[in-house]
Amino acid sequence: MKPLILISNDDSIYSKGIRELVEVAKEFGEVIVVAPSKPQSAKSHSVTLEEPLTIKETNVFGDVKAYKCSGTPADCVKLALHHILDRKPDLLISGINHGANYSVNLIYSGTLAAAIEGFMHGINSIGLSVDSHKPDADFTIAKKYSKKIIKSVLENKLDSKICLNVNFPDIEPNQVKGVKICRQTKGAWAEEFVELTHPHTKKSIYWLTGTFKNLEPQNTDTDVWAINNNYIPIVPVQIDFTNYKIMQEMKSWKL
Amino acid sequence: MKPLILISNDDSIYSKGIRELVEVAKEFGEVIVVAPSKPQSAKSHSVTLEEPLTIKETNVFGDVKAYKCSGTPADCVKLALHHILDRKPDLLISGINHGANYSVNLIYSGTLAAAIEGFMHGINSIGLSVDSHKPDADFTIAKKYSKKIIKSVLENKLDSKICLNVNFPDIEPNQVKGVKICRQTKGAWAEEFVELTHPHTKKSIYWLTGTFKNLEPQNTDTDVWAINNNYIPIVPVQIDFTNYKIMQEMKSWKL
Repeated sequence: MKPLILISNDDSIYSKGIRELVEVAKEFGEVIVVAPSKPQSAKSHSVTLEEPLTIKETNVFGDVKAYKCSGTPADCVKLALHHILDRKPDLLISGINHGANYSVNLIYSGTLAAAIEGFMHGINSIGLSVDSHKPDADFTIAKKYSKKIIKSVLENKLDSKICLNVNFPDIEPNQVKGVKICRQTKGAWAEEFVELTHPHTKKSIYWLTGTFKNLEPQNTDTDVWAINNNYIPIVPVQIDFTNYKIMQEMKSWKL
Repeated sequence: MKPLILISNDDSIYSKGIRELVEVAKEFGEVIVVAPSKPQSAKSHSVTLEEPLTIKETNVFGDVKAYKCSGTPADCVKLALHHILDRKPDLLISGINHGANYSVNLIYSGTLAAAIEGFMHGINSIGLSVDSHKPDADFTIAKKYSKKIIKSVLENKLDSKICLNVNFPDIEPNQVKGVKICRQTKGAWAEEFVELTHPHTKKSIYWLTGTFKNLEPQNTDTDVWAINNNYIPIVPVQIDFTNYKIMQEMKSWKL
């Protein structure tokens, strides 16, 4: 049986990135798309509890089966696994996101949340992102290397399932130095809220912006160093938030 | 100077849990509340990029300064740090949430996202939750032990800032066996979507429900074991998603 590949994203089913991904994935198996009907960037791992979800089949990908869903990326994956697919997929791919998801940005990302949701259900999962927010971003590098990565993950001989966070640099294809297995960079956002005046109430309103700060620019084993130096960083992801070092240290606390 | 304590949550500024928390925190310093104006449960670490945010001062906590914000819990913390507070808080406390946030539930939780957002800004942070979704849940245990935990964290002599995920069992106060420093339990949701018929379109709509499954019930060092055995589990949290074991194993992959 051909591998079953579930595709989702957070930029919505109408983005260029997911179209490019469908083209790539079709070479490797049977593809089914379940993706948000509208943009869900920065929705992180949120799920919809307060209202029901809708699903609608669509032919935006021609003969590839596709469904748009009213919920978040994590909702899409849950719905796909529980209501749409008749067997467990061999691979889940989320993306290709317009905008990088390196370092702590993974925490805010709907793209990665979809991949992590699949991983939580015991499915090999990949989150793919390009370092460009342009709606017509160039996916040449992303498509070429996605093929290598998808092939490797489908052949995954490890004892455990894996979840990969992959980011593609926005450079000329001939400048790419290859893939680099990395750890998540220590980083932070220097945030700024742009203060505007509400046209009706005349009160202040605040719009989130900011710039990313790499807190360890000298460390070459990190995903941000890699992408800034023309590599394609791949960070294998785990979902245990426990701080084991502090856990030991806290055992002496009197509580 | 008295410690400055920032309080947020995800159940909204009008929930019982945040009122109880304000009462507890007032004993330890100057309290400022910045919390969502409406419920934001299961919003995870989502932030609002597509629209501006509003802030409105409110007197719901009497003489304690409080602001309600139109965004998510993570938005509230960012706005508090960048626009409302005139100095960095000594402590951020999020909660007290109506509903437990043990095991993987931390990933979906808006309560924990607020705590983690503070931690990402270098602030000692605590997420507090009671294992009851009732709007009038009993906070007797939570209030008693929150005091001990807040005191300990304000006195934190560790080399690093900490972020704690604390869950209170929903039992009689005299049954509590005390606090237990734990790791995050391996767990998963056995999800179900309740299928309903939309009254207008007559099409199927899907409402997320499910039950939590503990995948390691025998392990006594986990937060779910602790709460099920009348302890108050505290999991120290970190935000590095890197899977270092897989990272090493993948270095032999041909990519």
